Amino acid sequence: MTLAALRTDGKRALATALAGLERDPDGEASQALLDAAWREPRAHVVGVTGPPGVGKSSLCAALVAAWRRSGKTVGVIAVDPSSRTSGGALLGDRVRIVHDGADEGSFVRSMAARDRLGGLADQTVAAMVVMRALFDRVLIETVGVGQSETDVAGVADTVVFCVQPGSGDSLQFMKAGIVEIPHLVVVTKADVGAPAERARADVAGALSLATAGEAGDWPVRTLAVSSRNGAGIDGLVAALEAHREHLAADARLAVARHRQSEGWVVQSLRDRFGRDGIARLGRLGLDPALTPGTQPFQRLRELSLALERPL
Amino acid sequence: MTLAALRTDGKRALATALAGLERDPDGEASQALLDAAWREPRAHVVGVTGPPGVGKSSLCAALVAAWRRSGKTVGVIAVDPSSRTSGGALLGDRVRIVHDGADEGSFVRSMAARDRLGGLADQTVAAMVVMRALFDRVLIETVGVGQSETDVAGVADTVVFCVQPGSGDSLQFMKAGIVEIPHLVVVTKADVGAPAERARADVAGALSLATAGEAGDWPVRTLAVSSRNGAGIDGLVAALEAHREHLAADARLAVARHRQSEGWVVQSLRDRFGRDGIARLGRLGLDPALTPGTQPFQRLRELSLALERPL
Repeated sequence: MTLAALRTDGKRALATALAGLERDPDGEASQALLDAAWREPRAHVVGVTGPPGVGKSSLCAALVAAWRRSGKTVGVIAVDPSSRTSGGALLGDRVRIVHDGADEGSFVRSMAARDRLGGLADQTVAAMVVMRALFDRVLIETVGVGQSETDVAGVADTVVFCVQPGSGDSLQFMKAGIVEIPHLVVVTKADVGAPAERARADVAGALSLATAGEAGDWPVRTLAVSSRNGAGIDGLVAALEAHREHLAADARLAVARHRQSEGWVVQSLRDRFGRDGIARLGRLGLDPALTPGTQPFQRLRELSLALERPL
Repeated sequence: MTLAALRTDGKRALATALAGLERDPDGEASQALLDAAWREPRAHVVGVTGPPGVGKSSLCAALVAAWRRSGKTVGVIAVDPSSRTSGGALLGDRVRIVHDGADEGSFVRSMAARDRLGGLADQTVAAMVVMRALFDRVLIETVGVGQSETDVAGVADTVVFCVQPGSGDSLQFMKAGIVEIPHLVVVTKADVGAPAERARADVAGALSLATAGEAGDWPVRTLAVSSRNGAGIDGLVAALEAHREHLAADARLAVARHRQSEGWVVQSLRDRFGRDGIARLGRLGLDPALTPGTQPFQRLRELSLALERPL
């Protein structure tokens, strides 16, 4: 599937192409598509993250609708965290972005989260690169506090961190310096009134302390938004646009995307070499499984050294 | 340093031995110490995790004091998350366990968190194995929601997850199935009264839904605890003891520790092979850094294949 074909053949063709990328990421057709898409970036890529239940999916749906009203096309990647867990969702917290499937100007793709086995992050990046060449905006939704900001910062131009009124934990993560500082902080459920404004002021205060020492390249903005009544959505769209323009100046976007690409390559190589090493052990008949009573550190050293012998 | 020497020479000798393990983990002396410590496990290993600001350090200090009063010796590993961050702590959230340095029956070691470069988790496991052979109780404190439960479950016999009253985010993580279900959930700051009891009931309700389908091997307990006035600390000590006895029955502890060991070995091998692969690329003069305009997926494939050529 060529990029030109994807531009004319619509959403169904795109879904087929993305499935092909997942099935055979190193194949010739995949590499040709990624190469073409890589050379023609078009979209502003926005990552939205935050704890479960904070209202990210509703916020993303409101953003997609606002962009569509202004004539922008939008691709969405919803990263599903369920693969990380032992048991899956308990209370059905799997509400996904509600959107109009018949609208050819918006497209939603769900993907599994990276897990310890690695490799899945490559697929998210690949999907992002293709969608970045096709749409005006790409939105990536991830769940989490901590690693997820780092992960989404590796693929998005602009990172939005969502907190809800009264959710002290997420603010504590920022104060403790455990999450990366996002570009925008959105307090959701602003229709509750005063608690949302208090939460917004609290976040803004913490961030002003956090970033006071920095050169002020991009002062983090905090906004209160209600997906229910639409309050603050226009302000969020405007703030995203302001960050897009900020990145466009002084080659910041090019530098940031280059740094992201280097980061993916190193991380993907590390994941691949790690998996390959385990597979090579298997081909040598060496099983990392332990017999009862084996001292694991000794076994670890033996197996590490095994691959340095000539094959 | 032999295990026998560590048993007589006190805390200073232990600190020296742990530093030696970190400096030269694969050396003969380190392997001999780990081997000896591995064969003589003594402690019940308790992992305490939860978001920053929830009061984990105060809780751990109260637990150490309670165990010391009953004559137990205690080793503590405090995992410092600052290496994960770009900027470090913003508001000085680095309050560490306050303890009596002159008490020969308790020992506290701070360690850096695993980061994306890997390898540090090995050191935490090594320190745990040595301390497990020396003390009656080992306490491992980590910060986070999400990956940190999985990490601490890989080294602890019993996992305690802390939430504070009114902190909906952490509960949402459990409801969404993103955190592993811990053995005990502790609602901290119970001196605030009704909100703590509400939080406890809320957690208990969510967990009863979560675990209703399971065979009831260990029904998760929820407790409200105040480190300030000591309320609930005895109950927590009793609940930990109950879980220790539960593990001791039917060889559960042996099975769980064996499974943990296999998990560390595979994870450590994957990390080592990943790092080694990057280092081998360097020796071949291949740099994962990208020249501007290079398509990163192509470069990734080239570099992946490079290691399959004969060296």
